[in-house]
Amino acid sequence: MIDRRRFAGSNCVVTGGLGFIGSNLSLALAEAEADVTVIDAAVASQGANPENLLGSARPIEVVQADIGEQGAVAEAVAGADFVFNLAGQVSHIDAMENPVFDLDMNVRSHLRFLETLRHVAPDSVVVHASTRLVYGRPQSLPVDETHPCNPHDVNGVTKLAGEQLHLVYERVHGLRACSLRLCNIYGPRQRIDDDRQGVLPSFIRMALDDEPLTLFGKGHQLRDCLYVDDAVEAFLAAAVSPAAVGEVFNISHDKPLPLRFIAEEVLAAVGRGRIVSVPWPYEQAQIDIGSYFGDSSKAARVLGWRPAVGLSEGLVRTVGFYREHRPCYLSST
Amino acid sequence: MIDRRRFAGSNCVVTGGLGFIGSNLSLALAEAEADVTVIDAAVASQGANPENLLGSARPIEVVQADIGEQGAVAEAVAGADFVFNLAGQVSHIDAMENPVFDLDMNVRSHLRFLETLRHVAPDSVVVHASTRLVYGRPQSLPVDETHPCNPHDVNGVTKLAGEQLHLVYERVHGLRACSLRLCNIYGPRQRIDDDRQGVLPSFIRMALDDEPLTLFGKGHQLRDCLYVDDAVEAFLAAAVSPAAVGEVFNISHDKPLPLRFIAEEVLAAVGRGRIVSVPWPYEQAQIDIGSYFGDSSKAARVLGWRPAVGLSEGLVRTVGFYREHRPCYLSST
Repeated sequence: MIDRRRFAGSNCVVTGGLGFIGSNLSLALAEAEADVTVIDAAVASQGANPENLLGSARPIEVVQADIGEQGAVAEAVAGADFVFNLAGQVSHIDAMENPVFDLDMNVRSHLRFLETLRHVAPDSVVVHASTRLVYGRPQSLPVDETHPCNPHDVNGVTKLAGEQLHLVYERVHGLRACSLRLCNIYGPRQRIDDDRQGVLPSFIRMALDDEPLTLFGKGHQLRDCLYVDDAVEAFLAAAVSPAAVGEVFNISHDKPLPLRFIAEEVLAAVGRGRIVSVPWPYEQAQIDIGSYFGDSSKAARVLGWRPAVGLSEGLVRTVGFYREHRPCYLSST
Repeated sequence: MIDRRRFAGSNCVVTGGLGFIGSNLSLALAEAEADVTVIDAAVASQGANPENLLGSARPIEVVQADIGEQGAVAEAVAGADFVFNLAGQVSHIDAMENPVFDLDMNVRSHLRFLETLRHVAPDSVVVHASTRLVYGRPQSLPVDETHPCNPHDVNGVTKLAGEQLHLVYERVHGLRACSLRLCNIYGPRQRIDDDRQGVLPSFIRMALDDEPLTLFGKGHQLRDCLYVDDAVEAFLAAAVSPAAVGEVFNISHDKPLPLRFIAEEVLAAVGRGRIVSVPWPYEQAQIDIGSYFGDSSKAARVLGWRPAVGLSEGLVRTVGFYREHRPCYLSST
């Protein structure tokens, strides 16, 4: 664990801070006595939820804006010490249905945001949220950062372009930027009321709703699932590591698990339920990448970061959170 | 050489067909008795020049439109057999100065074009023009297609995203798309009236204008320069090779040459002139990638393509063309 007192009194901006990981990160920064400003376009379909910031240790200012806008965004980031750039469109299915919107959210807005940053916050540290999906279908496992990037769907392409633009602005304009390629993150404050955010939130919702967990195919594919507190720790570690600048890091769990086992762990955390196998839906099969697990030894080596929370413990915490706060996160009951 | 009679009577669309490579390709297709439609936004600063199509063997229809528009573009590509997608912003310096424009031209318009294609020309063969700059600074030489893609500037990022979107649309939507990563292409119909198109057209203009050829630094960096007719042949070979679908290919000369030697060859072709060395300009040094040469053995193996024109022969043809047609290409005299 890094010493979070390093953020006390610092100016921190979290884009996408009303969303899943962004809100958990904002709350952690507030807890560490940072001055936190959230910039968020507040698109509910993208996971933004003002209730995500309830219970903050200190007030968090929320600027409602697309990060590609000027004006209010420039004002919010001027003089920032740390910029955690988590805004974006995250659904792979949505990206295939509305690819231009995905491009605009994940690349065009980020490019305009980088232009803003280099003018009004050229000395800030910028940590960008990327995804394991930039790799596409793995050629070999585990996947480390030297694996070729052949994204398998539109969202993978746009997230990779956003990441690479951050690195170009580091190299050419001196922004102290790096990017984290996140695996399957789960935990409190994730949107679970649709089934478009990945397999784990879908499983949790199904279990809480007393629906059988639907597994596509046999469920042998491996996934690495990371509890959101571990992801938050990775963002903080990257922000305070000078050696992170200009680099990309896999942020993933070192213990890949088969989807069927993950489903069983969800049932165990909820305390009831069952699993049914169904054939792959066409649109999911088209963009699925098979088994995946990442090698995050670079993050361990350079950032001193390692996952601390195992799946069963993370799921117990997650299920406990949704049981308490369910009305805020679950439109169906 | 492939048998160009295969294109006789086929419906061919060339985007960016008023530009440098696009016009040479359009003329070759017309010569092969294809029905050629050019779609071009006709932005002079992007190299579009209606005079590029003069002397065509058959009439070429020109649709003036951005490929991202619907309407006229959808009409032009409906039922196309072959789509050669060369539209784009090509200047790396311009991309750094106006990155959002570069993104819009090289990614957003292409994404909308791919959406059009999958609806109105789902069975067409699509050959996309990419660039060696997607690799960034080479980790080792020569660079083959498995080399990691870490683009060094905004244009490299946007060209890579455009290329990857073509491959996603192949995989997911069944478009028969492939992409060619082009090295330094030179020859007739290139815009040489500014110094933003790369080193060879700049050298040619300087020599024709009786200016000394300015070499940045010592000129030891290696480049592979390909005569435009060889590039045209690569597009045609890719279009008729079923094994090309879903693939990327380096299209480069197998004989890399130092920049100083290239400059000397330009002087030899022009028959006069001299070379001066100057320090690297800041904005060029920021995005330069050092020596580069590609390995195009995959194109040889899969497409049966090999470069046929050496540098001195290509330069003699190029200089001869500009001597004859100079007023169309050179605003300064």
